[in-house]
Amino acid sequence: MCQKGYEGTSMNDIAEAAGLTKAGIYHYIRGKEELLFEIMTYAMDNLEERVITPAQEITDPEQRLRKIVEGHINSLLEGVGAITIILEEMTALTAAHRRTIKARKRAYFEIIRQTLQELQAQGKLRDVDLTTATFSLLGMILWISRWYRRDGKLSAEQVLNDYVVIAMNGVLKAGGAVSKRQA
Amino acid sequence: MCQKGYEGTSMNDIAEAAGLTKAGIYHYIRGKEELLFEIMTYAMDNLEERVITPAQEITDPEQRLRKIVEGHINSLLEGVGAITIILEEMTALTAAHRRTIKARKRAYFEIIRQTLQELQAQGKLRDVDLTTATFSLLGMILWISRWYRRDGKLSAEQVLNDYVVIAMNGVLKAGGAVSKRQA
Repeated sequence: MCQKGYEGTSMNDIAEAAGLTKAGIYHYIRGKEELLFEIMTYAMDNLEERVITPAQEITDPEQRLRKIVEGHINSLLEGVGAITIILEEMTALTAAHRRTIKARKRAYFEIIRQTLQELQAQGKLRDVDLTTATFSLLGMILWISRWYRRDGKLSAEQVLNDYVVIAMNGVLKAGGAVSKRQA
Repeated sequence: MCQKGYEGTSMNDIAEAAGLTKAGIYHYIRGKEELLFEIMTYAMDNLEERVITPAQEITDPEQRLRKIVEGHINSLLEGVGAITIILEEMTALTAAHRRTIKARKRAYFEIIRQTLQELQAQGKLRDVDLTTATFSLLGMILWISRWYRRDGKLSAEQVLNDYVVIAMNGVLKAGGAVSKRQA
């Protein structure tokens, strides 16, 4: 599905990839849409477990933002990345499933926005709109799954460090500037 | 095609949207793939005319980068945006068409990367990899077409200004800091 796109993938392809007959695959999933929903749910569970929950334990908004940015980038670099592209296939979902996934994405968006709002209250945010800033961070981060190749020239560590520098300095004032992490 | 995605769009849909019969539409285009290629060509022509060519006349790399970022964002905000999503349907193209579009995207990427390299030589770029920085700018910018709605709360002017602040400060050192444009 990551290779062919949702529309381009048949139940035959799915059965073949799973090493099952077409009859066999229906024992596990009712159809393509259900599989799509399960993959999205898995991706959101992963994000929640690895990024959202740990970040929410951090009181300081600057550290929290850094944790979110780092955690999300890390999960993309490690290869859950391809799933991110699948997460955009919202129109293929049933209305009920779409509502569920949309609500989870929205909740994640709000956590970032809220963190930026706290930074704004502390005078650390640049003079930018909170919604625009949140989307610019998300766009920058989510795009990673479209270009980063683990067998390419850049190490995950390098990309992570550089992205954190660009993302944090993009939205935060120079006073609270972010430099490279100590290796 | 923007609404239904490339795979989800039939020649019937295209004929209907164009106010033609299915037989009539084949008078103008040979098929879906050709239309897709024409749309992508149009989007790249537009980018070239409005962003790349004017930017290349600017000698100072900081001003050139600003011109690219502003120009690209502006074209997305004005609604050529939906086309940007179509530009990702690379696998649907024939091999020859894919090579053509890929080369044009690559050329655009190289112009940004080259500009960042000149800024690096001037000591103005943050300590980040040129490829990573280029992709982070592109991701941030291209994502706009996925969330910005012209009938929403945020004006195009606001979004443009904030994005320029975030993008330029993300990659450039605080010394050459970028503040809001004078309205």
